[in-house]
Amino acid sequence: MSLLETEIREQPQAIARALQGTAGPIAEVVRGVAARGPLEHVVIAARGTSDNAARYGQYLIGARLGLPVALAAPSLVTMYGAPVVPRGAHTLVVAISQSGQSEDVVGVLASARAAGAPTVAVTNAPDSPLAAEADVVLDLDVGPERSVAATKTYTASLAVVAALVLALAGDADRSLVLRERGPQALAQAVDLAFAAVGALDAHASAPHVVAVGRGYNYATAMEIALKVRELTATVAEGFSPADLLHGPIAAVGPGTPALIVAPPGRVLESVLGAADALARRGAVPLVIGDRPDAALRLPVGLPEWLTPLAAVVPGQVLALRWAQVGGHPVDAPPGLRKVTVTR
Amino acid sequence: MSLLETEIREQPQAIARALQGTAGPIAEVVRGVAARGPLEHVVIAARGTSDNAARYGQYLIGARLGLPVALAAPSLVTMYGAPVVPRGAHTLVVAISQSGQSEDVVGVLASARAAGAPTVAVTNAPDSPLAAEADVVLDLDVGPERSVAATKTYTASLAVVAALVLALAGDADRSLVLRERGPQALAQAVDLAFAAVGALDAHASAPHVVAVGRGYNYATAMEIALKVRELTATVAEGFSPADLLHGPIAAVGPGTPALIVAPPGRVLESVLGAADALARRGAVPLVIGDRPDAALRLPVGLPEWLTPLAAVVPGQVLALRWAQVGGHPVDAPPGLRKVTVTR
Repeated sequence: MSLLETEIREQPQAIARALQGTAGPIAEVVRGVAARGPLEHVVIAARGTSDNAARYGQYLIGARLGLPVALAAPSLVTMYGAPVVPRGAHTLVVAISQSGQSEDVVGVLASARAAGAPTVAVTNAPDSPLAAEADVVLDLDVGPERSVAATKTYTASLAVVAALVLALAGDADRSLVLRERGPQALAQAVDLAFAAVGALDAHASAPHVVAVGRGYNYATAMEIALKVRELTATVAEGFSPADLLHGPIAAVGPGTPALIVAPPGRVLESVLGAADALARRGAVPLVIGDRPDAALRLPVGLPEWLTPLAAVVPGQVLALRWAQVGGHPVDAPPGLRKVTVTR
Repeated sequence: MSLLETEIREQPQAIARALQGTAGPIAEVVRGVAARGPLEHVVIAARGTSDNAARYGQYLIGARLGLPVALAAPSLVTMYGAPVVPRGAHTLVVAISQSGQSEDVVGVLASARAAGAPTVAVTNAPDSPLAAEADVVLDLDVGPERSVAATKTYTASLAVVAALVLALAGDADRSLVLRERGPQALAQAVDLAFAAVGALDAHASAPHVVAVGRGYNYATAMEIALKVRELTATVAEGFSPADLLHGPIAAVGPGTPALIVAPPGRVLESVLGAADALARRGAVPLVIGDRPDAALRLPVGLPEWLTPLAAVVPGQVLALRWAQVGGHPVDAPPGLRKVTVTR
């Protein structure tokens, strides 16, 4: 079994472990934030796969805490010397990086800390430079991720970000749902995906793939596109329905597989509308959802905010499968490194 | 002459007009913001081309005002009912939309206004639903944009956003540079681009195009990619160097034209590093810069923050030219509409 398949299958245990191990440090963050009065906004810094975890955080923070989230532009700090947080405002700064090595993300946290803002690092490397700049480290502790394509660190980051946001919201009910239903949903999603993926082999060599998601699952579409791209060297792109229809759909041609991230929820109609628009251009919508006719099935009965933990899995498994069908090396795709150092 | 070419050539006059007409309303925004005490953060809502103008605003606000910028996720408001701004914080909310019709962007402004935040609309449609929700309307007033691909409304939005930010920063010197040098730089860029673009016809039918930019010109790379995509139905993608190297470069194959947005400035080395990495994969870097050996020349001597006004022009002209070479209709690309209504 490839390292990648092993790590995809490890995800249920990985997030259970991540949730358990971070419970204490998350409580520490909540206490630290509360001591400073009402939280006013949140800045998240991340790159690559972790940036997709940040997008999920943006939606959950908006919905549960009612706060705007700035996804930091790290080069503002490292290239232009701009501060991350304004003086006097109550801003929580969260950095997400599995390796904790990205110099620009470390720079954001260092700048925020120097300005007196509370800082949190979500990382799988508690001894990293990033962790050293954080007031509190939320250690994913999912074991080494040896495949270059990140999977278990992504879902563990989603779970820990969700746990942090729900704790800040004082939402004990959803926190319980996350801990109890999260790992189980992931396990079901893994089984369902491996059972279904072979039926889509006809699309494995498509030169262009799009993924569409919205709301909580915008992150999922972006992350699925990144996995397909990293593993198959196909041009794969993630879009929200609105962004897709504002221009980029012009370049979607006949036969293009379109992965439609469509679990039940408030954005379902909008996402299925994009699927219809894509079909009118001759693209082939492949729905990721919990209905019996979905191309890739998800576990049923998940609350919408929890679906990103499960909905990314069919994309991970599809990327792995299509890479295998195409004869691509799955554990170390050519030209990619596990740690990308950018300033 | 196509409508598109006419509108590309109108840009110098258009931004001069936009800067002149918005000076009074911008002063009104500055007074309104100052009356509430120190500004703490900024939220910008936009879609499509206007979202690229928002990205420029994010960098300029970070560098000149030291404030974090949240690029609003409109569906949080329209689908999940989340508030745009937290109670009690001093947040300026800016919406950018040439048509003023995007329901989700209107929804963000309405929500912000209901919460008591100061609201600004940057639009070419002062009688639009968006304008009706704004405390102050910054009317681009560039005349009707009849080509589906936005050009003069994009550069006018950049200019007006810059004027707003510099006014909020009390930066009279740079405000003067913007008014005096901006239109002139655009005029030079238009002439240089039309003179040079024919030499790149060999790449007009490439199936995949990437554009790379960073810092102030991340927006430029994203907008150039969108123009190429809208006009030629090619899969064209914009990246920052950091994001490109974090995975997506895996799908860049030999012969891919790579538009490298590289005017002088702090990010130049980083951007040229990405060009080298692309060249190692067999891609063909085409540099947009002010050096004599650039494939597409820019006017010399512009301060970095002002370069996005000029640097997008070669991309607009290239997209027009490649569409003409490929026999695509340039004024009304199939499948696209001027106003995309998304909720």
